[in-house]
Amino acid sequence: MRYELYYWPSIQGRGEYVRLALEEAGAAYVDVARRSGGMDAMMRLMGSERVKQPPFAPPFLKAGKQIIAQTANILLYLGGRHGLAPASEAGRLWAHQLQLTVTDFVAEVHDTHHPIATDLYYEDQRTAARQRAHYFRKSRIPKYLGYFETVLERNGGRYLIGGRLTYPDLSMFQIVEGLRYAFPKAMKRAEKKVPLLVGLRDRVAERPRIAAYLTSKRRIAFNEDGIFRRYPSLDG
Amino acid sequence: MRYELYYWPSIQGRGEYVRLALEEAGAAYVDVARRSGGMDAMMRLMGSERVKQPPFAPPFLKAGKQIIAQTANILLYLGGRHGLAPASEAGRLWAHQLQLTVTDFVAEVHDTHHPIATDLYYEDQRTAARQRAHYFRKSRIPKYLGYFETVLERNGGRYLIGGRLTYPDLSMFQIVEGLRYAFPKAMKRAEKKVPLLVGLRDRVAERPRIAAYLTSKRRIAFNEDGIFRRYPSLDG
Repeated sequence: MRYELYYWPSIQGRGEYVRLALEEAGAAYVDVARRSGGMDAMMRLMGSERVKQPPFAPPFLKAGKQIIAQTANILLYLGGRHGLAPASEAGRLWAHQLQLTVTDFVAEVHDTHHPIATDLYYEDQRTAARQRAHYFRKSRIPKYLGYFETVLERNGGRYLIGGRLTYPDLSMFQIVEGLRYAFPKAMKRAEKKVPLLVGLRDRVAERPRIAAYLTSKRRIAFNEDGIFRRYPSLDG
Repeated sequence: MRYELYYWPSIQGRGEYVRLALEEAGAAYVDVARRSGGMDAMMRLMGSERVKQPPFAPPFLKAGKQIIAQTANILLYLGGRHGLAPASEAGRLWAHQLQLTVTDFVAEVHDTHHPIATDLYYEDQRTAARQRAHYFRKSRIPKYLGYFETVLERNGGRYLIGGRLTYPDLSMFQIVEGLRYAFPKAMKRAEKKVPLLVGLRDRVAERPRIAAYLTSKRRIAFNEDGIFRRYPSLDG
């Protein structure tokens, strides 16, 4: 079976956590909306009254007839099927718990440039964005990264869970990459306190399938339409 | 086994989605932080270096030696054990997907009064709060409630999933109650477009265990320290 991933075609966004898992798994998948006519197909599916279990928003994954939405939920599904999650139920809940904390963090990253409304342009909410980004850099980056550093430390330092890679490790790579892109100054300071996390980022980047993906055309570059945006006035 | 729920003792907050599930299940549980000395116990557990899998934040549930955090993750765990989730894997992923959409919505509710920083008081971010709440009332309430109404409609109108109550239905009750408390004017308008959701709210409220819970001391009243806060300047 070939998976169909549905996500906005020009950004990494929330879809990227799924792409990284599919790539590491070596799974066959189509990034539907990036194909000719794919955006229409995605919008049609989202609007269709025949879909009994509609997604609220992309990303969603089609696996045969099943449609699975919500990033962390897709990873819960894929993790168990592709050796990217612990085998035990308790281990899977722990992996998922970490992923849901990633979800929370990603929403906060988004809101640094959209603190008032997703309906408005960034340019129309710059004042609030500067304020929110200030507290984000000062409190939230250290708090979240410090938390994941602690989890790594208590597990021996190499991976978040057990003795091998699981899907939340892949998300850690994306979080570090994204923060480096969006908040280069703040991140330079923050990284000094999370050496294990930086080491994990490097370990993920070196995995053969991830390394191949990152240099392929399948990896979309960071840009100012995505979640991690480089707006110099939000860094410092 | 008696569950131990750990959550802030004076608010419904995110803990309430778990409390509703425990109550409907008739499960034995202690709301730890509401007992004498319980807050200390919660803070000690969160700070303990001996906890190998620490929660990022409350709520978390202790089930024997296992600690499970993240509201939706706790419900994923409880749902399967107490007949509050579909039996099939596909059904459980769908229930969880809906719950994760509830999670997103609840975070947006929170940010109507804290659009800049959780570190600051509401009083110090009132201007941004008024702006965010405006778009929240105008766009986000209709979008989220409309989505859940559609899901109900495509499932026949009585429950979100299948022919009986599952844990996301309990969360729908809380969402309607919370919006009625925090945004009475906006909600009065919004409810006209989501009759099935209002019907589901009533159906949940009438369930014997939920009805008993709601009139008990275990149900904390809504207040201005929680997620749903009644600030008249944010309604309209």
